[in-house]
Amino acid sequence: MATTAVAEVDKTAHPFDKANLEALLSRRFFYAPAFEIYGGVAGLYDYGPPGSSLQANIISEWRKHFIIRDHMLEVDTTVMTPAPVFEASGHVARFADWMVKDTKTGEVLRADHLVKNVLEARLAGNLEARALDGQPEVAKAAALTKKKKDEQKNAPVKLSDEVASQYEVILAKLDDYSGTELGELCRTHEIENPATGNGVSEPQQFNLMFASSIGPTGQHPGYLRPETAQGHFLNFNRLLEFNNGRIPFASAQIGRSFRNEISPRAGLLRVREFTMAEIEHYVDPEDKRHEHFHEVRNVVLSLLDRDTQYAGSTVPKKLRIGDAVNKGIVANETLGYFLVRIYEFLIKVGINPMRLRFRQHMANEMAHYAADCWDAEIHNSYGWTECVGCADRAAYDLSVHSTRTGQALLVRQALKEPIVTEKETPEFNKKAIGKTFGKDAAAILKTVEGLDEVGLLKLKGELAQGTAVITVGEGQEFPLTSEMLKIERKTFKQSIREFVPNVIEPSFGIGRILYSLLEHSYWARKEDVDRGVLSLPSLVAPTKVLIVPLSAKEEFDPLIREVSSKFRKAGIFARVDDSNTSIGKRYARNDELGTPFGVTLDFASLQNKTMTLRERDTMMQLIGPIDDVIKVVTELVEGDIDWAEARRRLPVYEGVQAV
Amino acid sequence: MATTAVAEVDKTAHPFDKANLEALLSRRFFYAPAFEIYGGVAGLYDYGPPGSSLQANIISEWRKHFIIRDHMLEVDTTVMTPAPVFEASGHVARFADWMVKDTKTGEVLRADHLVKNVLEARLAGNLEARALDGQPEVAKAAALTKKKKDEQKNAPVKLSDEVASQYEVILAKLDDYSGTELGELCRTHEIENPATGNGVSEPQQFNLMFASSIGPTGQHPGYLRPETAQGHFLNFNRLLEFNNGRIPFASAQIGRSFRNEISPRAGLLRVREFTMAEIEHYVDPEDKRHEHFHEVRNVVLSLLDRDTQYAGSTVPKKLRIGDAVNKGIVANETLGYFLVRIYEFLIKVGINPMRLRFRQHMANEMAHYAADCWDAEIHNSYGWTECVGCADRAAYDLSVHSTRTGQALLVRQALKEPIVTEKETPEFNKKAIGKTFGKDAAAILKTVEGLDEVGLLKLKGELAQGTAVITVGEGQEFPLTSEMLKIERKTFKQSIREFVPNVIEPSFGIGRILYSLLEHSYWARKEDVDRGVLSLPSLVAPTKVLIVPLSAKEEFDPLIREVSSKFRKAGIFARVDDSNTSIGKRYARNDELGTPFGVTLDFASLQNKTMTLRERDTMMQLIGPIDDVIKVVTELVEGDIDWAEARRRLPVYEGVQAV
Repeated sequence: MATTAVAEVDKTAHPFDKANLEALLSRRFFYAPAFEIYGGVAGLYDYGPPGSSLQANIISEWRKHFIIRDHMLEVDTTVMTPAPVFEASGHVARFADWMVKDTKTGEVLRADHLVKNVLEARLAGNLEARALDGQPEVAKAAALTKKKKDEQKNAPVKLSDEVASQYEVILAKLDDYSGTELGELCRTHEIENPATGNGVSEPQQFNLMFASSIGPTGQHPGYLRPETAQGHFLNFNRLLEFNNGRIPFASAQIGRSFRNEISPRAGLLRVREFTMAEIEHYVDPEDKRHEHFHEVRNVVLSLLDRDTQYAGSTVPKKLRIGDAVNKGIVANETLGYFLVRIYEFLIKVGINPMRLRFRQHMANEMAHYAADCWDAEIHNSYGWTECVGCADRAAYDLSVHSTRTGQALLVRQALKEPIVTEKETPEFNKKAIGKTFGKDAAAILKTVEGLDEVGLLKLKGELAQGTAVITVGEGQEFPLTSEMLKIERKTFKQSIREFVPNVIEPSFGIGRILYSLLEHSYWARKEDVDRGVLSLPSLVAPTKVLIVPLSAKEEFDPLIREVSSKFRKAGIFARVDDSNTSIGKRYARNDELGTPFGVTLDFASLQNKTMTLRERDTMMQLIGPIDDVIKVVTELVEGDIDWAEARRRLPVYEGVQAV
Repeated sequence: MATTAVAEVDKTAHPFDKANLEALLSRRFFYAPAFEIYGGVAGLYDYGPPGSSLQANIISEWRKHFIIRDHMLEVDTTVMTPAPVFEASGHVARFADWMVKDTKTGEVLRADHLVKNVLEARLAGNLEARALDGQPEVAKAAALTKKKKDEQKNAPVKLSDEVASQYEVILAKLDDYSGTELGELCRTHEIENPATGNGVSEPQQFNLMFASSIGPTGQHPGYLRPETAQGHFLNFNRLLEFNNGRIPFASAQIGRSFRNEISPRAGLLRVREFTMAEIEHYVDPEDKRHEHFHEVRNVVLSLLDRDTQYAGSTVPKKLRIGDAVNKGIVANETLGYFLVRIYEFLIKVGINPMRLRFRQHMANEMAHYAADCWDAEIHNSYGWTECVGCADRAAYDLSVHSTRTGQALLVRQALKEPIVTEKETPEFNKKAIGKTFGKDAAAILKTVEGLDEVGLLKLKGELAQGTAVITVGEGQEFPLTSEMLKIERKTFKQSIREFVPNVIEPSFGIGRILYSLLEHSYWARKEDVDRGVLSLPSLVAPTKVLIVPLSAKEEFDPLIREVSSKFRKAGIFARVDDSNTSIGKRYARNDELGTPFGVTLDFASLQNKTMTLRERDTMMQLIGPIDDVIKVVTELVEGDIDWAEARRRLPVYEGVQAV
């Protein structure tokens, strides 16, 4: 990997500076608030050229890693969805968050976020107050003054140990509270709108789906999908047929989804429109093993399981996935297989494995039908952030759509060994029964048909002895004879098994992964805190190679064309920067854009057909014949060699450093 | 190209059978009505695995052909858009179609489509009636009976030559009619709802944007974008900065758009949700030449210009684009450059060049601000279909958003040669003027400042001679002296030029291209009309190679893995079909899926490490060592060799044909 040169650079010389990163992302147009010139709309963002390209590269790798490698069936279904679909799926009734209103200003806040922000601020204040204790009054005052500058309104307040640990427990279980409980928390702990100091209303549900109307008559309500999943489920029969009727198989979809968030304020992490990638893997409910589980069995993951969270802790267990499945911590092999595949994908695109954990959903947090659910959480400046969900949704989705539409959504499997059963079976002489009992005949037939094996055997015995009395409804008795009814033991053979498959669903929020990756990749050069670098892996970097001619002189044009064309033929995405500024400034700009390699064309290139190769993180330069350099860069970008190997192949350039 | 083998196959043995194609597309799940198990929703479709893959390949080629080759700046902006943006752009007022209602059933129809369908049916009936004339009565009756079976309600009616040609003219100008004119046409020509025979109402406008509401308060109306363009324009300043302040440059976006069509009934050609690819190319309004125009100057296009249409004809001119621009038929070089690039793209993905033309918009059809507009129309079973629009939108878009927001959206260019101008310039002694004329002073100043060069010179002459009389407002006269006013010749230097760039916009409907491509690719084998083949080019085919083991026996597994892995390393997307059916059936299925090549692994493969290679269109088979075959297929798929060359490299397989 190109980034193994990392060891040679001190990336921690400056602590992470979020304001600097944000300025970089805006300046280089990775993304920006949508409708900025109209004042913007919370929770809507546009990606500029480097952001679009980074996103496209992450998606391209996702497609290779999941769809192509595991032979998934890709689908592309519509965003606009008629209301009955989300009525059946439960979204109309339940896809909601709890909101509270500021009692005076009417500002709308998300209840769980409010509780989290307030309690976290109090805990931080507590730590600070304790740190101040015992300091001379002057230092204390100075610290408080600084604090005021940071727009903290109140002085830090010390909490009792009991209250502090109560807060810790609430925060660890936050996702598990109902609306009523959130309201109680606000009252009990006197939680107010921090922006105004006003109290807040009782929590109310707000449905997060954007509503619209389909067609010119206004009679067909529709919603924008809040996830891509229903589009997979509704096509289940077609997908099963495409897969020649066999399961397990998976469908996959990459697409836009929409959620009308209550008051989104966390940049790309909480947005009203976003790109998702979702897999629906269909398995036999009686056999959730996975064909390739043995390949991943020994991979160690950080697992924050349910019991640990209930105990008020957030320290994950490090476990091999094989052991986690054996111990029942992870419900089944297929779920475990996907947790590892998710882990591998995230690491590959550049997520720091030390800042990645899998957290199990708690009981209330999990959908009632789900068998198990884990979130891949990535740590960033906002805290631990759910970036991928991975749930065993059991047979819920296919069942509800099947019930609502009356269409079977199930698998028919030929049994290798037909199941042969014997059972007592009644045979009626309906004419005789009708003649004898008139209008009661139907009720009598129904009662007999409803008898179990024991009941039928009892009746059979009585008939053999002459007359059998059957009790219908609320105690009315009728005598039956063997002329009216025969009960015989018959053999039944079942050669087809029908079942509704279960669904394991890994669901990726691409924007959240992309933002976390930007944070994990960002650092500043030791010599200058403003010289930011994005150490994106070559795999996802928007541009792989920058071609830098020494000047805009026309004499360089043929060489620029030659080098560009050779990179293009090698399949390496290169860009020329012939802007009218120093080579150093051009490289600094490309460090900010995360471009891993640069090649410089100077007068030596014209004379000797050589060029220099610069590595982004170390700024080290090598030199060699143009074709050799292109070959080395190609192998670096494709991950076939690392920088250490590149250094063995090409001599270090001893000329002027193009910093 | 792999498809040059075409010449050896008769693809016209059977006439195009739309029902057969549609059955194939449904059976192989290229696409299907969305929410099918819920009864479907008109105008919404889901793509299954082969459709998704075909679409992804078309988009991938689009990205290479336009974005990468022409160094465009990709953006990815939101679908959900606050209302003020579309108020400014004019969509809220004008993005509408004319609809009429059935006066009895209330059914809603699009007015122009109604006129088109009815007049076309009458013209078809006319031809038929004339053909029947002179036939014996029996044959006539038989023909009419057959017609009834086809659910034609009325017998064909002969039209007078005058009426027929009137209809032809209306159809040729159809896109040019206003709502009132459409209403008049319905009355004049007694156009009724063909489904019911009822009359229709006066045309009314129906806005095609889906409306929604952003945020929890319901106070922020929003629309789903009906095109991606506004997202480009709103980011113009950021894009210009990203491009170092230079123009021309282009932004590009691939994404979903939404139009609430009135009564969509033409499959993928008229849908309520679709994927577009749009380019916004920003040029200097005073210089619309294109740097690469010389490379395309001699490409010949079919151009159906405005004048030809006004003359009631639909026969395009074949012109070299260089000549078309010189003659002023196409407005400028940049527009001409894009027409050729569009043409090249469409041909590359497999559109039949004989069924492709460029039609110029007529006056009413074109937006009022547009300088010129051409549609790339592809012929398919629905007629000539707009698949790409290419408009010179002048400065409209940037201007309206700039006006609405008060934000400058313009280019500042340092002039190489500052423009030096000399002009007469008044210098006032405001004190003296104020003293003399009191409250009239301001009006006097304004009047002098408003004078042109000639007026100032006249005044200057009079002042030199003592007193100059200036006339203010409605004839009031004031005497000015050289103490109050001096007029001197001064030099001005302008070194920055500011201008709002013009926008050339090529806009692609991916679904329409995809559907037309499927029609152009479809044919049936001579020996059997039901054996459909999709001759998709390798470039866009969902799967490039099918690997077919003779049987599901385990002994083939290592070889399957080896061949799969070698194709993967060569970057060729291959799939294994080890389903439990004959090799012939597996190949037939893949002919329907458009898979261009197949390789068969049999017992000879195990013994001799050879495999056979089958070409889809000819069904011809070659044989060779596994590695040689993989190399040949790789070069075929990448377009480096054609089938004729493959035949020179590998011997023909003389064994049993795997049809």
